[in-house]
Amino acid sequence: MFTSILAAYDGSKGGYAALEKAAELAKLSGADLTVLTCYRHHSMLEASLSMVRGARETDRNLDDIMRQVSREAAEEAKARAQEMGVGKVSAFIKNGPSARTIVAFAGERGCDLIVLGSRGLGSSEGYLLGSVSHKVTSLTDLPVLVV
Amino acid sequence: MFTSILAAYDGSKGGYAALEKAAELAKLSGADLTVLTCYRHHSMLEASLSMVRGARETDRNLDDIMRQVSREAAEEAKARAQEMGVGKVSAFIKNGPSARTIVAFAGERGCDLIVLGSRGLGSSEGYLLGSVSHKVTSLTDLPVLVV
Repeated sequence: MFTSILAAYDGSKGGYAALEKAAELAKLSGADLTVLTCYRHHSMLEASLSMVRGARETDRNLDDIMRQVSREAAEEAKARAQEMGVGKVSAFIKNGPSARTIVAFAGERGCDLIVLGSRGLGSSEGYLLGSVSHKVTSLTDLPVLVV
Repeated sequence: MFTSILAAYDGSKGGYAALEKAAELAKLSGADLTVLTCYRHHSMLEASLSMVRGARETDRNLDDIMRQVSREAAEEAKARAQEMGVGKVSAFIKNGPSARTIVAFAGERGCDLIVLGSRGLGSSEGYLLGSVSHKVTSLTDLPVLVV
């Protein structure tokens, strides 16, 4: 019933549960699974919090670390899905605001289902401003499975 | 992967799409399907809008009509799911606020997935105050598929 499933994975416990449901559904449907991990550059977060920018070298190092952590999370998720028996799994990382990035990427990849955790690492923001899962369901016409 | 699926159905177009996804998933998983249609008594809505209550006979008639319309919606959904080949389908109507009623009923029935439309008949409320799907995902720990 689904042919291409996007699992948004941020390395959180909720994200892991969502990944496993996505993998089960992919197996059951014979669908491809795409894992996406979103991250924000430290320098962008920093710019929004303070007028004073950190030293450029430090910024670059922190950005490298965030990209690296995201890459590791995405690859870990891909390995888990393969271990669960999903035939075709791809893993990507994207820099950008989570909900918009997830929805845009699902569109580009032609996915017909988005799966994500109900509360990821951005939990305090989720509580106050609406969680990523709320934003994703608001922004997309695709079915969304919130785990 | 799912054993008991609750499809919330309000008779809207979005609710119908959700019902069909729920039925497909139930078939694929070999799960039971429970259809739930929620409604509010007219007299309760009326009481919240005005100090002046309508004539009791009129209230009762409108309540009867709302219950009847909900019953027909639930039965229509059940028939559609059976037509789609779902083995075990039950249909219920419940009087109460949609999101809380859906979540409570899913718990009572021991369901392991809730499926619902992203925007049902209460669309203006959804836009302003948070849709039923947002409320349901906030209120439950169960996986929720928003179609």
